[in-house]
Amino acid sequence: MNTIDLRKVGNHSVGFLSFFEGINHIPFDIKRVYYIYGVPKGIVRGHHAHKNLLQFLWCPYGSIIIALDNGVKKEKILLDNPSEGILVENGLWHTMQWGIDNSVLCVVASDYYDESDYIRNYDDFLRLVKEGYWNEPEKH
Amino acid sequence: MNTIDLRKVGNHSVGFLSFFEGINHIPFDIKRVYYIYGVPKGIVRGHHAHKNLLQFLWCPYGSIIIALDNGVKKEKILLDNPSEGILVENGLWHTMQWGIDNSVLCVVASDYYDESDYIRNYDDFLRLVKEGYWNEPEKH
Repeated sequence: MNTIDLRKVGNHSVGFLSFFEGINHIPFDIKRVYYIYGVPKGIVRGHHAHKNLLQFLWCPYGSIIIALDNGVKKEKILLDNPSEGILVENGLWHTMQWGIDNSVLCVVASDYYDESDYIRNYDDFLRLVKEGYWNEPEKH
Repeated sequence: MNTIDLRKVGNHSVGFLSFFEGINHIPFDIKRVYYIYGVPKGIVRGHHAHKNLLQFLWCPYGSIIIALDNGVKKEKILLDNPSEGILVENGLWHTMQWGIDNSVLCVVASDYYDESDYIRNYDDFLRLVKEGYWNEPEKH
């Protein structure tokens, strides 16, 4: 869907560095960072969508499967390459399944935390998709 | 020196989430993100200081020793707790030593990449400290 390949500088002797800048490499200014760690293999997290928030996800260690669902089409993306990230736009129900113990998921978001931006019930999500919520930006 | 304890939400069954927001939890807006991965144990990276850039470092997996040097005093900080980060202000010569293979260092920075902001020669760094470069903000 929205995979972004980042620059990767370095080699196997000293390791690698990847980077991105708000606006320049991802399509928003970075207001918030969160990261998920210490997760056992097999655990599934997420189970929500956002009304407006844009997020960029990357996995600097391990292997995580990102499942995205826009209410019509479902897609799974394996995130196991640290120099690759995924843009998760608003209006996408998403879950993340840990493939290796202690895999790290890092996320930057386009806004500060706002619980009212979360849709945590899948039926509510499907209803909003059917109503065209994400097709009419002027409503937001 | 400048350790910041972040919120840690979760438990050992499902893992943990930590977060921070520009301005609200760290003293700058986030313009750039970079992260270092695939590094063998024992490798030392860094070896530079910044004229103006502010950075916040955290280690979501593994163990990294951060050495900070303001030209007068040296300090080492063990970064092995994912919910703890370090603010690395400008005018600090810094190195990072990897304690465990594949430890991840994540960094957010207060500005876009600018090579002219780097001081990569230690003698130049000491000379600027002696000249009071970082004591006279109006010069920058």
